[in-house]
Amino acid sequence: MRNWVCAGRSGELPGRGDFVVREVGEESIILVRDDAGAIRAFFNVCRHRGTRLCAEPVGKTGGTIRCPYHAWTYDLAGRLIGAPHMDEAPGFRPEDWPLAGVSTAEWDGHVFINLGDDPKPIADQLGALPDRFRPWGMAELVEARRISYDVAANWKLIIQNYSECLHCPVIHPALTRLSHYLSGENEPAAPGYLGGAMTLREGVASMTPEGTTRRPTLPGLGPAECRSVQYYAILPNLLLSLHPDFMMTHLLWPRAEDRTEVVCSWHFHPGAMARADFDPSDAVAFWDETNRQDWRVCELSQQGIASRAYRPGPYSGREDLLRAFDALILRELGDLPPQS
Amino acid sequence: MRNWVCAGRSGELPGRGDFVVREVGEESIILVRDDAGAIRAFFNVCRHRGTRLCAEPVGKTGGTIRCPYHAWTYDLAGRLIGAPHMDEAPGFRPEDWPLAGVSTAEWDGHVFINLGDDPKPIADQLGALPDRFRPWGMAELVEARRISYDVAANWKLIIQNYSECLHCPVIHPALTRLSHYLSGENEPAAPGYLGGAMTLREGVASMTPEGTTRRPTLPGLGPAECRSVQYYAILPNLLLSLHPDFMMTHLLWPRAEDRTEVVCSWHFHPGAMARADFDPSDAVAFWDETNRQDWRVCELSQQGIASRAYRPGPYSGREDLLRAFDALILRELGDLPPQS
Amino acid sequence: MRNWVCAGRSGELPGRGDFVVREVGEESIILVRDDAGAIRAFFNVCRHRGTRLCAEPVGKTGGTIRCPYHAWTYDLAGRLIGAPHMDEAPGFRPEDWPLAGVSTAEWDGHVFINLGDDPKPIADQLGALPDRFRPWGMAELVEARRISYDVAANWKLIIQNYSECLHCPVIHPALTRLSHYLSGENEPAAPGYLGGAMTLREGVASMTPEGTTRRPTLPGLGPAECRSVQYYAILPNLLLSLHPDFMMTHLLWPRAEDRTEVVCSWHFHPGAMARADFDPSDAVAFWDETNRQDWRVCELSQQGIASRAYRPGPYSGREDLLRAFDALILRELGDLPPQS
Repeated sequence: MRNWVCAGRSGELPGRGDFVVREVGEESIILVRDDAGAIRAFFNVCRHRGTRLCAEPVGKTGGTIRCPYHAWTYDLAGRLIGAPHMDEAPGFRPEDWPLAGVSTAEWDGHVFINLGDDPKPIADQLGALPDRFRPWGMAELVEARRISYDVAANWKLIIQNYSECLHCPVIHPALTRLSHYLSGENEPAAPGYLGGAMTLREGVASMTPEGTTRRPTLPGLGPAECRSVQYYAILPNLLLSLHPDFMMTHLLWPRAEDRTEVVCSWHFHPGAMARADFDPSDAVAFWDETNRQDWRVCELSQQGIASRAYRPGPYSGREDLLRAFDALILRELGDLPPQS
Repeated sequence: MRNWVCAGRSGELPGRGDFVVREVGEESIILVRDDAGAIRAFFNVCRHRGTRLCAEPVGKTGGTIRCPYHAWTYDLAGRLIGAPHMDEAPGFRPEDWPLAGVSTAEWDGHVFINLGDDPKPIADQLGALPDRFRPWGMAELVEARRISYDVAANWKLIIQNYSECLHCPVIHPALTRLSHYLSGENEPAAPGYLGGAMTLREGVASMTPEGTTRRPTLPGLGPAECRSVQYYAILPNLLLSLHPDFMMTHLLWPRAEDRTEVVCSWHFHPGAMARADFDPSDAVAFWDETNRQDWRVCELSQQGIASRAYRPGPYSGREDLLRAFDALILRELGDLPPQS
Repeated sequence: MRNWVCAGRSGELPGRGDFVVREVGEESIILVRDDAGAIRAFFNVCRHRGTRLCAEPVGKTGGTIRCPYHAWTYDLAGRLIGAPHMDEAPGFRPEDWPLAGVSTAEWDGHVFINLGDDPKPIADQLGALPDRFRPWGMAELVEARRISYDVAANWKLIIQNYSECLHCPVIHPALTRLSHYLSGENEPAAPGYLGGAMTLREGVASMTPEGTTRRPTLPGLGPAECRSVQYYAILPNLLLSLHPDFMMTHLLWPRAEDRTEVVCSWHFHPGAMARADFDPSDAVAFWDETNRQDWRVCELSQQGIASRAYRPGPYSGREDLLRAFDALILRELGDLPPQS
């Protein structure tokens, strides 16, 4: 897909020259904060002989990116500023050999990249979400915990699993105690995202083992927003779960047709984190257990759909987002006409 | 091949609702004993979203097969009897969504399945064997030990290895002490099986390290049948070795072009097993060592035939079953005309 | 490539009947010293049913090569001299079933094999090297140490890495202290090899951690030859590094498109080895560290060139052998016309 892909959070690059490396499909991409404070992205490939420039997943450049092989050196805008002995090569001009760039965009603290040549504006992809989710103040939130999962399933099965709660009474008894699986409403599917809200049961304050929380609600939220959780799949790879007192994100990184690395992070308000009694472990424990329940059935689905006996079955009315997702994918693959 | 494949023993499913799962090529198949006491087989694939229904290799259903994802529920005849919220889906009829079935058959305690759409009768495949082997009373015998081997060789090399004893004096010195490699006779190859008998040397009672046994001979056998061992490859995947006092079976499960899982089991008469001094370890030890000797040369053959220098070589008169097997395989592949 | 491939050293087969096995691409090749004292090579494939004849990488035959499966037996010239029960097979003649042979050649103690049907003379491939390197007396030298490396890079990247020292100041600080990276001269590339010399800095006697050596210089060398190191890539798989007091060889064995086994050996004069204070560890330690530095950047290059953003970049004047190597490879692949 030629879509904007979520690459993480702006807060992962706090200072000038800080970098992270993301493996996106077959490609390795460097994200770095440049001298002007903006985030830039480049293919992790030296223009000389193709060597990986950054071998570590996260670190600090000293203001330049230097190839470990022959010391070709680039500034944080990707310009070649040093190439030993190339001045002897006839016709060589450093300005002809910048790093291959990747488009970047930010939305409320989330960083996106686009590996296509002429990307559409990210606003097209996000639609109504920036306005709608402004009260949560996502840009302010800070990651407190991260867990990576290696899931033996195609990424699309994980999107589908996230997009319906018909399975909740079967595999998530703890979740079902906090939020009725038929509560809330799905929004009609947009081209760039699928989602809806689920209502917390009376007396439940957040998604934790006991349904309680000692954290205050996020400062921008009104009373209504504190009675539900927003669950949105921002296609293709960000699952955004907005709670009254925290944000959970899942990033999906396909590693093979039948394998996905899922990075789940829990983000909190700095005010809550500054309190002496701050403890994210209730939110982490609840969702870590729920995650593992989901990955297991996703893996069982992956195994089953590989059978020659598999034929797509019928969806219930509770799986409308899946039908919409299937149509989006078929449209991307050119098997359906563009949506009128 | 569109043949009947041996899936194990009827005794592995003692009661109603008991199941085992078999991985057959790329497919996962559930075998279950139904309410009427018959064995049925189904693809291990939910009709809703394709999920594996049984994740464990063996177990007991509670009388129904229930999908772990959204609780679609099937009876032991494969009929869909529960599908939450599907009653809201327009035009949905449970009778349209039964489990995909697999044909089953039994022969004297051996269970066979056929993944083809319109299988030929298993009697065609077994030919004269049911009559011939009736004296051994195979249905009565009970598995006492099982060993699984992971062999880095194509399954056809294992069939070939089993089908000649020309290699016995080279790699099986212990076997050669019990049974002369030129003793006995091969039966002319049938389309469904290859085999023959080997004579026990004078004073040898069974295939054990000392050639002795404390077990009585099987009750249906006459004196002549107690002087030899029957070795039959029931194509494509059952090796059946009938001794005077026990039955050994090998099931071959291809896992890759160059890898086969081999499950070897030793089966005894319940009368012998009821005796206080019953001990199968002599039969197990003898054949486990012999098995390992065979797997090693099969693996060396697998490696060698992958060479571009390999050309099929000539067979001796002691390898007539191999020539017949090659012809059967070529006929299956359509490279030879059907046998007239 | 249909080139002569270096398979090791004549000294690895000291006596009649000694053998080594080499894995060359997909093929397993036996090298054996025959009854006349010559080295012969055969595909490691029995003519009967294709079994690997030698399962061990090195050993002694008892004067014949005997298949472990059915005891087909070959003499050291590859003639079939025993085949149990084949005398009963009509029309069978042992002389029709010799081992498949592989051409062999020797150069000053190095053994080469050619898997092609009608190999060109090895002299064409070696060109001027046999005369030029005669003073080092390579045939006399004896291997004292060997280290194998598993490198996650294509073999051609290792050849390229070996063929320029532009990277030396960046990744080999210890080497740069002993030999200036701009010292010496490359010879114009020949069709069969690429190489040149580098000058030792004043006061440096050999490539060791301190630049010193207690070993005498090789007896055939003059003073000029003792002031430099010869670095030659004998294509496709031998890297030959001739020092004043020892020879280092690297053999490259491609194991996958992106994986190469590299076997590095250090060879010394028997006179030096006979001394009580002989110790090769300075030479081994220096080059083992240098090797590991090289493999790391080769692996980073392998990762980078797999990117769709990779385009071949420009070479400096210090990378002339790489340009020549690229042209040789393209010519082998038929993408460039033969050199006029």
